[in-house]
Amino acid sequence: MIGKTFAKRRHALQQRLRHQDIHSLVVTHSPDWYYLTGFTGESGALVISAAGSRNAVLLTDGRFVAHAAGETSGVKIVQQAGGLFPALGKLLEALPGRKLGFDSGQLTVAQRDDVVKAAGPRKSWKAVPGLVAALRMHKDPAELAAMRRAALLADEVMSAAARMLKPGIRELEVAAEIEYQMKTRGASGPAFETIVAFGARAALPHARPTAKRLRKNELVVLDLGAILAHYCSDMTRTYFVGRASSRVRGWYRAVLEAQAAAIAAVSNGASCGAIDAAARDVLQKHRLDRYFIHSTGHGLGLEVHEDPRLARGQTKLLEPGNVVTIEPGVYFPGVGGIRIEDDVAVHENRSEVLTRVSRDFTEI
Amino acid sequence: MIGKTFAKRRHALQQRLRHQDIHSLVVTHSPDWYYLTGFTGESGALVISAAGSRNAVLLTDGRFVAHAAGETSGVKIVQQAGGLFPALGKLLEALPGRKLGFDSGQLTVAQRDDVVKAAGPRKSWKAVPGLVAALRMHKDPAELAAMRRAALLADEVMSAAARMLKPGIRELEVAAEIEYQMKTRGASGPAFETIVAFGARAALPHARPTAKRLRKNELVVLDLGAILAHYCSDMTRTYFVGRASSRVRGWYRAVLEAQAAAIAAVSNGASCGAIDAAARDVLQKHRLDRYFIHSTGHGLGLEVHEDPRLARGQTKLLEPGNVVTIEPGVYFPGVGGIRIEDDVAVHENRSEVLTRVSRDFTEI
Repeated sequence: MIGKTFAKRRHALQQRLRHQDIHSLVVTHSPDWYYLTGFTGESGALVISAAGSRNAVLLTDGRFVAHAAGETSGVKIVQQAGGLFPALGKLLEALPGRKLGFDSGQLTVAQRDDVVKAAGPRKSWKAVPGLVAALRMHKDPAELAAMRRAALLADEVMSAAARMLKPGIRELEVAAEIEYQMKTRGASGPAFETIVAFGARAALPHARPTAKRLRKNELVVLDLGAILAHYCSDMTRTYFVGRASSRVRGWYRAVLEAQAAAIAAVSNGASCGAIDAAARDVLQKHRLDRYFIHSTGHGLGLEVHEDPRLARGQTKLLEPGNVVTIEPGVYFPGVGGIRIEDDVAVHENRSEVLTRVSRDFTEI
Repeated sequence: MIGKTFAKRRHALQQRLRHQDIHSLVVTHSPDWYYLTGFTGESGALVISAAGSRNAVLLTDGRFVAHAAGETSGVKIVQQAGGLFPALGKLLEALPGRKLGFDSGQLTVAQRDDVVKAAGPRKSWKAVPGLVAALRMHKDPAELAAMRRAALLADEVMSAAARMLKPGIRELEVAAEIEYQMKTRGASGPAFETIVAFGARAALPHARPTAKRLRKNELVVLDLGAILAHYCSDMTRTYFVGRASSRVRGWYRAVLEAQAAAIAAVSNGASCGAIDAAARDVLQKHRLDRYFIHSTGHGLGLEVHEDPRLARGQTKLLEPGNVVTIEPGVYFPGVGGIRIEDDVAVHENRSEVLTRVSRDFTEI
């Protein structure tokens, strides 16, 4: 991403700050500050002011000052003295603007107290949750290109992982190989702890890999995602090792049908709740809805879970540039589970499925 | 860890709650709730009440209810309806105790507002930061045993990684192999993004691995840690590929001397600031203190950064059961850097270095 892209995003945020009547916004969530400046350090705070073109000050400690100087452009870098939040308050005290905004969904109560105290009594504070998250929901063409590459990498790794599924292999071995394959293909790492669940363990939607060995006639859930050039992918496939019963095949067909219905519902202007309902209705028709114990999907981007949320009753409407997962599943305690997950981008007049590994029922 | 261990920790927390005049404490940080219950799910909230032996209620969503039931003992599991923090408030509203505590260092402003609102006007709230963190600072024998194993695993992986250092290899390849080695040795994953920095990139204390290839006559900084059975290790070694100049050897000797001084200063009753000063004084003697741009170390346990912090001016005194990193370093922009890091446990009358790979200057 080039400096101009970050400057453009800061400019878009400035307009929102003026709309909210805020002179300066405190940005303390690292994906947010990366989005606005390109800074990849692990500690710091960014201040974006509503006025002017020299509108960004990044405060960080000695470990990250050299990073920050090399990674950003048009951003004033300040090395903090003492704790981050007291130092941030002092920096704000010296800025001209009186009306300050903070993200109440990111700052802890203690951080807010520290920065408010240090900024002094001449400042007024307003909670403005999710201003940067709202911008981040709309991926620009460069971001969509990055997400296509991250999805393609997940496709490659999923295909490689499926080839490893032989009776006797351990969940942990498959997980280690998946994450190794990601890294050797250029990922900075997994977007989340890879899920490899065999047999009855597949009934846990978020199973951690164990030393369990794969046996014949077990379901296998693989849920993996990579971070490539800062952007995340997230996909799930379910395989069967051996010959499946007609009951298992029926479950799989129902989940696949639910997923197809939800993917078909993804479009510019559709409500997030309607997409969740599309998947849930299909599973209800098959009398499986009570085994679908989570929501249908979530936004994806610099973080693996971001806005929007595709859950019951969500009224938010999808817009171009949104990227969401569609991941219905059914879980039978003691028996196993099935989930199928893909990443879908919303465009003006169409949607685009980014992950492409076959969803056909596969017996290995 | 067995159920009795968790019950004992909850009992210790109950005493602190009574001391603080709090009827129930809200625990929302996942390492804290793991420490108190054994629950490894990714979403939830725990309520610990000061009175009674049935003192723990764990609220979580449908994805993690089966986990929670299997992982905990003596804990009431409640499946949340709707958002976590409103549901938590409703749960608290129905509990008898009126005086509620929350960790202001963990709850965001929005979460606090949500839970306070839902709990209703009959409750009073008190910010009590770090109550569980304070317990977690004192590792019990089972925790120390787990940390020794995590440290040993880091030793093994560091030795394997050093053998990979041949001119032509890329930083990313070494990082991928390190994390693969961790997983195949039983780690659930790296405790942080592995740092592999060659040549001038070693001047960045937190360099992310890149496609850069190793060349002759470069410094190599490897900073790695594994999570094994929930506990973290964290260690750094610096190697030289080729024959080092006397200047580089002098830097290395100074850092090693500083680290030895700080390790020697680690003892029951020593102040955290004094340990930082021990390292800094040695580097000052060598006129290198201005290249030491971070603090000397940090606590280590279920998280890779926890209390206590070994930094300038910290007055906290070390106590038995504390485990800290000792990691002085020097960084020369454009040239390279040297850091040596080990994990040290504090006992009643001695300290114990958990990580054991040779610290001798090594040319490869």
